[in-house]
Amino acid sequence: MGGDLGPASTMPACRAFLDHHPDASLVLVGTPEVLAQSQGWPRCIQVTASQVVAMHDPIEVAMRHKRNSSMRVAISQLKGVDGKAPAAQACVSAGNTAALMSVARYVLKTHEGIERPAIAYAMPNQADRTTTVLDLGANVDCTAEHLLQFAVMGSALAAAMQSTQRGAEPSVGLLNIGEEIIKGGETIRRAGELLRAAHAAGIINFVGNVEGNDIYKGSCDVVVCDGFVGNVMLKTSEGMANMIAEFIRQEFTRGPFSKLAAVLALPVLKRFKARVDPRRYNGAALLGLRGLVFKSHGSADALAFEQALCRAYDAARNGLLDRVHDRIAQTMQSIPAMAAGPTPAAPADPARRVA
Amino acid sequence: MGGDLGPASTMPACRAFLDHHPDASLVLVGTPEVLAQSQGWPRCIQVTASQVVAMHDPIEVAMRHKRNSSMRVAISQLKGVDGKAPAAQACVSAGNTAALMSVARYVLKTHEGIERPAIAYAMPNQADRTTTVLDLGANVDCTAEHLLQFAVMGSALAAAMQSTQRGAEPSVGLLNIGEEIIKGGETIRRAGELLRAAHAAGIINFVGNVEGNDIYKGSCDVVVCDGFVGNVMLKTSEGMANMIAEFIRQEFTRGPFSKLAAVLALPVLKRFKARVDPRRYNGAALLGLRGLVFKSHGSADALAFEQALCRAYDAARNGLLDRVHDRIAQTMQSIPAMAAGPTPAAPADPARRVA
Repeated sequence: MGGDLGPASTMPACRAFLDHHPDASLVLVGTPEVLAQSQGWPRCIQVTASQVVAMHDPIEVAMRHKRNSSMRVAISQLKGVDGKAPAAQACVSAGNTAALMSVARYVLKTHEGIERPAIAYAMPNQADRTTTVLDLGANVDCTAEHLLQFAVMGSALAAAMQSTQRGAEPSVGLLNIGEEIIKGGETIRRAGELLRAAHAAGIINFVGNVEGNDIYKGSCDVVVCDGFVGNVMLKTSEGMANMIAEFIRQEFTRGPFSKLAAVLALPVLKRFKARVDPRRYNGAALLGLRGLVFKSHGSADALAFEQALCRAYDAARNGLLDRVHDRIAQTMQSIPAMAAGPTPAAPADPARRVA
Repeated sequence: MGGDLGPASTMPACRAFLDHHPDASLVLVGTPEVLAQSQGWPRCIQVTASQVVAMHDPIEVAMRHKRNSSMRVAISQLKGVDGKAPAAQACVSAGNTAALMSVARYVLKTHEGIERPAIAYAMPNQADRTTTVLDLGANVDCTAEHLLQFAVMGSALAAAMQSTQRGAEPSVGLLNIGEEIIKGGETIRRAGELLRAAHAAGIINFVGNVEGNDIYKGSCDVVVCDGFVGNVMLKTSEGMANMIAEFIRQEFTRGPFSKLAAVLALPVLKRFKARVDPRRYNGAALLGLRGLVFKSHGSADALAFEQALCRAYDAARNGLLDRVHDRIAQTMQSIPAMAAGPTPAAPADPARRVA
């Protein structure tokens, strides 16, 4: 039901996903009118919900006043009831991010040892792979322990999603403003210490500090940062991509010669566009929950939303949930600071403490 | 003497600048061998220095062991000695940023009411103007008061540099992860309060929170953030620009048809490239000092370094130093929190307390 386009985008995406994945089945959650569209679809279960969380609903509305929202019902499909297996292995939504995170935390709870879930997104890089960056906005203030948790969960995600491609242990970088270990504020420097300890314990493959340009260079597989920095980074990238696309469009339509050049260069420009098309990378993982939840960009069209479904499908197939769980358990054993929870230095944001 | 290319880039740039600005004169500071190249140049004074700060010299080396460095001698030209007028109105360096900031702070001191200078850079935007962003890395941990100071200084810079273009009071946005005033951590929210107070007092034209994409959209003239976030934003942008340039190059050289298309599209591609050419935007201002210091990118070629010289020239001509001073004085009168200095909550970084 979610997203700027709503079912007009998600429903065709679901149908295409079913056609492209003969071994997958879908549990569609929504209002009866929308679900009626899927009548006769193969491998498809319809679950009705009487409410819908709007894109701008405050968290409180989603949590307290819409207990039968499609979002909440969909997330609940990840929980087995009365000893029965869960109806679904992963949940995908294009809805309100803050509401999705809060409802997912409330319904699913976090893994033991994880205080705050994080949002992770795989971004394209110059090495023609992806760089998984987290957190992208769920956690404004992070302690060093949170950043360690992000590194561990991000490694599990990259390993699960890229296992077929490369197999090697994902390399992790700490986003900073210089390579030297003395760079950054106190939290970042302490996070560097914890990450080095986790590396020494064989939990992650930490390569040290990285800088903003390393995300697109592809210097490492996973980049860890707090949610404020990650969100600014992501939005800045979106803004720059839009500016460049607009400048290219303007230059190729400036007079008859440019238009002719555009026609001739069209196949090349199309290939370029496809390579940086954000729809290909759609689908961010909410990590740290006891269930797989993926967030599609609100503006996703059918192609983009199908991509998010594919990501969730790959994550479930590759056992992401167990991988995250196992790595966190291993980290808690090896790094006492993580088991002890965050230091009291950074105040927890009460708005995030819904669960 | 500074920069990756050293005098091979700066000297031709200085010569071109003199040719293009018949009303300007230059004080060239460097080693005698390099200065010998400028013999016979018009409107040009040579000042020799016996030492050079290397690009990777620690701050301590620049401060304590290279007291006769070209960097320090150049900055000293901004100070009048024994009641005499200063030899120069602005200083430009392509050298080591951290050293430049520290030496400039030590030699020039900060304006009254300014605890920490900031680095401000004008970035291209989709509205075909520039967005001035600060701080870009001088201050890792910032208090709300620092962010207010950045807003005031950034407004003075934008007004000085764009005055001929638009005349209106520059609009200022606070970089955040959402437009709502409750977004962000405690420091950001408090900074929002101070900025609204400064707006109400008529000191700045604050438009509220902006997000990363607004920088390139051109939603406002000045964007304020702490140095960590600003540095990540800047480096991420560099990385993305490099990736896109590389992808365009790759697609236009993939096979004979693409190469033909590239030849035909060359004038268009050149126009596009010129529009986003970072050399055109070279020259960051160090704001808050009692003297105008501009930092050129270390990798600057002659064209880029000349641009930094032009920026310093415009700043001096448009009275940037007085504008910053006057605005800060006005702010201290109107916003008691600023006059009182930062709250003790955020510990000052000892490494920055050189002066």
